[in-house]
Formats: sequence, structure tokens, C-alpha cells
Amino acid sequence: MEQHPVLAAVDLGSNSFRLQVAKVEGEQLYMLDGLREPVRLAAGLTADNYLDEAARQRALAALARFGERLRDLPPEAVRVVGTNSLRVAVNAAEFIAEAEQVLGFPIEVIAGREEARLIYMGVAHGLPQSDDQLLVMDIGGGSTEFIIGHGLTPLKLESLYMGCVSFSSRYFPMGKITKNNLARAELAARSELQNIVADYKGQWQKAIGSSGTAKAIAEILELNGWSRSGITREGLDLFRAHLLKVGDVHKLTLLGLRPDRLPALAGGFAIMYAAFDELGIEHMQLGLSALREGVLYDLWGRFHNNDMRDVTVRHFMRRYHVDVKQVERVTRLSDVLARQFFGSEVNAQALQVLGWVASLHGVGIRVAHNGYQKHTAYILANADMPGFSKKEQNRLSLLALAHRGSLKKLQGLLTETEDCLLVMSLRLAALFYRNRSDVVLPDMAASCNGAKFSLAIDAGWLKQNPLTETALQEEVKQWKSLGVAVQLIKK
Amino acid sequence: MEQHPVLAAVDLGSNSFRLQVAKVEGEQLYMLDGLREPVRLAAGLTADNYLDEAARQRALAALARFGERLRDLPPEAVRVVGTNSLRVAVNAAEFIAEAEQVLGFPIEVIAGREEARLIYMGVAHGLPQSDDQLLVMDIGGGSTEFIIGHGLTPLKLESLYMGCVSFSSRYFPMGKITKNNLARAELAARSELQNIVADYKGQWQKAIGSSGTAKAIAEILELNGWSRSGITREGLDLFRAHLLKVGDVHKLTLLGLRPDRLPALAGGFAIMYAAFDELGIEHMQLGLSALREGVLYDLWGRFHNNDMRDVTVRHFMRRYHVDVKQVERVTRLSDVLARQFFGSEVNAQALQVLGWVASLHGVGIRVAHNGYQKHTAYILANADMPGFSKKEQNRLSLLALAHRGSLKKLQGLLTETEDCLLVMSLRLAALFYRNRSDVVLPDMAASCNGAKFSLAIDAGWLKQNPLTETALQEEVKQWKSLGVAVQLIKK
Repeated sequence: MEQHPVLAAVDLGSNSFRLQVAKVEGEQLYMLDGLREPVRLAAGLTADNYLDEAARQRALAALARFGERLRDLPPEAVRVVGTNSLRVAVNAAEFIAEAEQVLGFPIEVIAGREEARLIYMGVAHGLPQSDDQLLVMDIGGGSTEFIIGHGLTPLKLESLYMGCVSFSSRYFPMGKITKNNLARAELAARSELQNIVADYKGQWQKAIGSSGTAKAIAEILELNGWSRSGITREGLDLFRAHLLKVGDVHKLTLLGLRPDRLPALAGGFAIMYAAFDELGIEHMQLGLSALREGVLYDLWGRFHNNDMRDVTVRHFMRRYHVDVKQVERVTRLSDVLARQFFGSEVNAQALQVLGWVASLHGVGIRVAHNGYQKHTAYILANADMPGFSKKEQNRLSLLALAHRGSLKKLQGLLTETEDCLLVMSLRLAALFYRNRSDVVLPDMAASCNGAKFSLAIDAGWLKQNPLTETALQEEVKQWKSLGVAVQLIKK
Repeated sequence: MEQHPVLAAVDLGSNSFRLQVAKVEGEQLYMLDGLREPVRLAAGLTADNYLDEAARQRALAALARFGERLRDLPPEAVRVVGTNSLRVAVNAAEFIAEAEQVLGFPIEVIAGREEARLIYMGVAHGLPQSDDQLLVMDIGGGSTEFIIGHGLTPLKLESLYMGCVSFSSRYFPMGKITKNNLARAELAARSELQNIVADYKGQWQKAIGSSGTAKAIAEILELNGWSRSGITREGLDLFRAHLLKVGDVHKLTLLGLRPDRLPALAGGFAIMYAAFDELGIEHMQLGLSALREGVLYDLWGRFHNNDMRDVTVRHFMRRYHVDVKQVERVTRLSDVLARQFFGSEVNAQALQVLGWVASLHGVGIRVAHNGYQKHTAYILANADMPGFSKKEQNRLSLLALAHRGSLKKLQGLLTETEDCLLVMSLRLAALFYRNRSDVVLPDMAASCNGAKFSLAIDAGWLKQNPLTETALQEEVKQWKSLGVAVQLIKK
């Protein structure tokens, strides 16, 4: 793919929405301007996780402004990611459809561990070279990510279900801070941290805080003389005593305290305090960059043969012990057929997706042999797949499910002509190589006219291969059950 | 478990139902009497896979006779398995409920590969010691199993969706045999065989046929001078020519042809002929035993610390890289708690199930970390698990799903008090060890009175472990959402 000189990332966070633009110069990525909108999506979630109207309005207004800034960029130069609030909102799908209209770009909701990976990538690129293992902590509005890594490589990724906005609403509803509700919030955070304590404690030399909460606390501690630099345990204790003395976030008059941080301050503090305790942190530095920078580096990598998604696909092929020779056969033939079906309008991104599905179509065999396409589909929809968004995983899952077996049950799911084209290429490749050995293929010509597919095959070859001919005729019937016309021509 | 001197197996096959009784003497299993009823369940399946009334009546009448023979045996000495027709029948659940009433024992439907494993075990026990790799082929009424094995160990297990009853109904509806319909049936069988040809061909030295179809064909070939012993390729060609010449199974007047084999003969022949062709078989011997003997040896093993289910559980722990230390902790504590809950009425079989779930509760982590209990449940419900029936797998799956996370969503699923008791033991063990390291446990006493559970814990310990106390209180709430009362007592 050709490299666009300007890239942009949008982070639809649970606290704020952020836009970051970067310029590619040679082998460097330079951060240009950024925008930040304090949308506070998490605060707009009702008790039963509906996104309320006020938050929806704030979000759409912010996205309209972002859309204006992004207007001239091509789709492959922009990546927009949504995090915890969009993961949990029951009505997220409707909101996302509207938001995509306003913004002009597709929105990808990413899983918690994928968020952690991208945060680490952003933080690590902003730090000087070092041999220390790092603990990166990013307190978001609705979730908090903890990463242990070394250099540019994340080693452990976790996303816990606690955030500065959600905790502030739950434990400090009117901004009142008492000994009792602060202790309850801290206990809840410590409980949540039990999930990672055994794996994380003692596994790092340097702690980095990368979120708005960390930045706000560090500034308050430094400017009020409670710490010399960054966040310290002693500084937190002094700040905690002050919070209890004043008893109300709205009455705080501290140096460095920005009004827009107030609504999320008490919850964020409780999480930070609990993390120092449970993970044994003594000192935390600030990281200069985070999720949006990570998204930019990840996007940039895709133009440099350094696409994380390819790395994940190779990793999964090993983890699930796929039959590599069979993958090569199916990948090669499905690619040839798809290019013929596309004709003059080859879609490079669709071919990339096809290659991933061809590589991973057999991962479900590890669960059970019969009907393994269902197990492959389950794994691709549910596994942690670094680099892939949930939307991409769902597409891989659907295509893998359709790659063999009955198509009738996919009525209503397999509706896009492009998906049909990819699935047909994959099914035909799997059909020709169904006994998993090298065979001499016939002369073939595939084409697609509108939604009508045809496949011309050498008549002599078919006569010598009656089993394949039977299978091809069965294939035509399968597509008919979905309402898709496929013509088999003997030439 | 104490060994009962008489064991019995019932095979609810798609062609016939069979009962086999065996006597245990020292280290030997002696086959005693057997019963066979030509129920032809597969022929009673309608086009949309409903079991029709006539077949239902034939089946229940046969089971009533079996029930009389089995009346005096204890439940653990009897195993009843259902195969393909009960796997595919849409109304199988209703039929099975009725059938269990009539028979007096629970019925377990087994997966195709589990059927293949048990067939191999039966066949292998009936053969003299040899160093050859074996190909065992068992043409059933609705499915055909192919196994490659060595000694008592099966190496490859497959179950293909073609059988002598289903093929006879589909391709030879009135018993008429023409060049055309015989070729179509053979082509369909060869197509199905493509699924295994690459893996099976050339991988064995001796072929064994173990089903009624193999026995019937071998007898006809031998008695009519078409082969000297067993089934040969030449003999099949001669028989085939004869079938085409006569043109109707009902007009055949061959030596050795039993009338009860007629309805399934043509379909079975086509499958046998195709298998010789595709797998390159020249000669096939008869195996003397099959599924029902395999079920007996499997059942016998359970009394001799040789339970295949334990072997599978250990294998899965390795395959899915579970945290062995954590499994030990959770297994130990959940067993202690469950014994306390059971009080004087300890249920050994339930404790065995609990041990399996404790061993496998973490297999889903391999798919994804967050909400891994869902992935564990998926794997346990869908994986090939040698030794386990589908019913047992579904129970393991449910218990694993419930072992952590919200219980509210299990309303209507977790209804048996015994299952609640097991799940509670497991959840409490997982809770105490949730940070996956050794901890000093408190003095505890668990008890269960009717459907009311209580747990008494040392008050001093709770005071020192407020995180665990919070988690325990949350646990009480979880059970309340299911309508189950749990009392937490500080003592």
C-alpha cells in the first residue's frame, strides 16, 4: 500500500475524545496538532448501560469538529478507536452508525487488551531507550489498563473494569469525599487488582502513568510541594489527607487543579492509591504519550510490512498447530480465484482479509474435527487478537464459518457481494484441495458480473475427476440456497 | 468404586439394538449372553429427521425386553449408548426420556469419534497380539467409523456421515439395483471418503471389518465361492456383477444371505466397495467384536483406575497449558468444601465430576483472558473428549461456566441442588485462591440443609482479610440473584 504523508488517530475514550495528527518524514513519525474534547461518555451511561441523550449530543458535536479536521484524509490514513464505554453501552451500535456519518470514517471498538497493547506502544515510543522492565498504568474513564513491557514489546496486558469516571459516579456521586466512601472505593479497586497482583508484582523496575488522571495528580503533587517529581507514595498520602479534610472536590482550591478534571478526580485518586498499595509502587513517572500515539504507530507499521495483524496471524498458526502446507495451497488458489472474480477492480484490502482467513481457517480443528468451521469461527470472534478490532474479528469469523459446510444457515449474514466473492474463492480452494494433498488443477477462469458468478473449467479434466465435478455441482446448489447464482461452464 | 461382578452394555445402533452382558473374573472379562433386535431406527427417520411413530414403537418394545434382562443390575454396572440416529433425530430428547423410563437406565448419546474409539477398543480386545497397524471399518446404519490403531491404542478416529440404512433408503428405495443408482451411491461414498483419504491411505497393514454389513458380505463371498476367506477386491467385483445382473435385492437367492440384512444390503455394499477403492484395500478380515464390547471394556476400566475420562482430563490440562499449581489448589479446597456440604451423604460420582471441572476450569484462558469461563464452557461442550458422553460434557460445560462471574444469567440452567452445591464449592475455592498463590486459609465449616447453604469462617481471619470478606459478601448476593440462600457466619 502507498504511504500517505499524514496519518491521524481518533481515540473515543470514556472520559475525553482525542484527535492526533502526525506527519511521516522518512523513517520518522512527527506528532502534529491534536484536539481534545471532554465528552465524558462514561458519565452518560445509565445504570443499565444505555448511553443517554446528553452524552450522545456532546459526542456527536465533538465528532463533527473532528470530522472537519480530517476531511481531506484518505480512509487508510485514519484510524478511529472506541474503548470501554462503547464496549459496554447496550445501544453502542446505533450510536456508532450515527457517529460514523458525522465523522466520515469507520469506528472500530477495540478489546481491553488490544487497548492495553496500543497504549504501551504509544508510551514506549515516547520513552528513552532503557533496559528496565516497565509497568505502564493508564486510568481511563471506564477501564484501567496495566501493561508490563520491555523496550517496544509488551509482555503482559490486562484491562480491569474500573475507571475514573465510573468510580467517581459510583462512590462520590455529589463530589463528597468521606473516610467511608473513599475507603469503599479503594477497597473495590483493590479487589479488582487481585486479578493481576500475582502476575504483576515484582515484575518491573519502572512505573509509568500515562493518562489524564496520572498527569493531573502528578501536577497537583508537584505544584503543592507534596512531591519533587511525579507521583510518590508519600505525596499520595498527603493529598489523601487533604481530600478528607476538605471533604468535597468542588471546594478544592489546589494549585494545578484544572476544573475539567474535577468530575473524575476522586474516583481516579482511589484507583491510583489502591494500585500503589497492591502493586507496591513507590514512584511513578509520567509517560508523554498513550493510546492515540499507539494507534498512529500501529497504523504506520501497516505501511511498512510491520502490520501487527500479520504477526498475530502467524502466531495463531503456530499456537493452533495448523497444517501449513494446506494453508499455502488454499491461500494461493483462493487468491488467484478472488483476483479473477474481482476482474479489473481488485480490492487490495479485501484480498488481505482473504489471506488472513485462508491462513486461519483450520484453527478450530484443535477443538474438534467435525464441523470445525464453527470452532474456528468461535475462536476468531472471541480470542485476543492483537492488531485486530472487534469488527475485523467478526468479519474473519463469518468468512471462516462460511468456508465449508452448509450455506443455508448463513442467510441474512452473508449479504455483501464482496463477502460472497471472498467466501466463494475460499470454498472453491478448499474444495479442490479437500484431501489435503497437491493435485494437478485444471485450466480455470472465474468471473463475476454484478452479483452473478461463473467458473469455467476444462471439460476433459472434469471428466477425469468425477468426484470434484460432483462436489462442484453440490457447491452451485449451496449458493442457490442463499439466492446467489453460480454458473459452472465446461469449456 | 466397588466392582460389580456383572457388567452390561447396550448399543442403540441405527440398524439394530444390541445388549451384551459380561462377567468379571479376576483380571478377565468374559462375554456372556447377548440380545439383538433389528429396530432399524435410521429407516424411521423422516426427510426432515423426525423419528417416526413406527420406529419409536419398535424401539420401545425392544427396550422393554432389554429392561427385563437388566433389571437386577446396579446403575454403575450398565452403560447405554446411542449413536448416529439419536445424534441427528430432531425429536431425540423426547424419545430418550421415554426410552429411559422403559429401560430403567440412563441413555448417553455419544459423538461419532467417541463411537469410533469404543469400536476400536472392542475390536482390538478381540484380536491376537500383533505389531501391525490396523484399519478398522465399521459400517453402521447411519454413520461409518474408520479407525487406525496399534495394539489397544487408537491413533486416528473418524466418523463419516454415511450408513447402510440411510444409503439404502436414499439410493435404492425399492431395493432395485441399476448400473446408474449403484454408481451414484458409490460416488457419494467416495466423495465422503475424500475427508480421510489423505490421512488414512497407506497408514495400515491389516484391514478389519467389524459390523453386520462386513459379516454379511464376507459370508456371501465365502459361501458362494467368490472369496476364500473374508472380503477381497475380486470377490466384491464378482458380487457387484451379480447384484447388477439380478437387479433387485428381494430377488437375490444367495447362500448365506439372511433376510434381515436385505433392507440395508445395497447401501452397505456401495460403501464397502467405495472404501476398498479409495483406501486401496485388497483384503479385509472380520473383527469378532465391536461397539458394545468396547463399551464394556471402557466401563470395566473405570473400576480399575483406568478411566478414559481421567486420561482425557490430564491430556486437556497439557493441551491447554493450564496452571497446574492453581488446579491443585482449587481441586483440593473445592473437594473439602463439597464433602462438608454433602455431610453424611457424600456422592462419590458428583465429587468425581467436581474434580474434572476443577482440573479443566482454566482451559478457556488459552482463547482469551477476560470472561474465560465462557470459553472454557464452549470448549468442554464442543471438544472431542474421549470417554465422555455428550450429556457429561454438557454438565462439565455448565459447571465451568458457573465457576466465576455473574450467576444471574444462569437462571433456569442451574436448577439441581447438587449442581449448586458443586458450583458453590468451586466458586469459593476459586475465590480464596483468586490471586493464584498459596494463602493461609481460615478455619471454615460448610454445611447444607435442604437447599440452604451456610459457611462459617473465623472472624479474626476475616478482619485481617477485608478483600476476601468483600468478595464473600458479593458471592452471597450472586446466589441470592438465583434464589439460593447462603448464610455467611463469623465464628
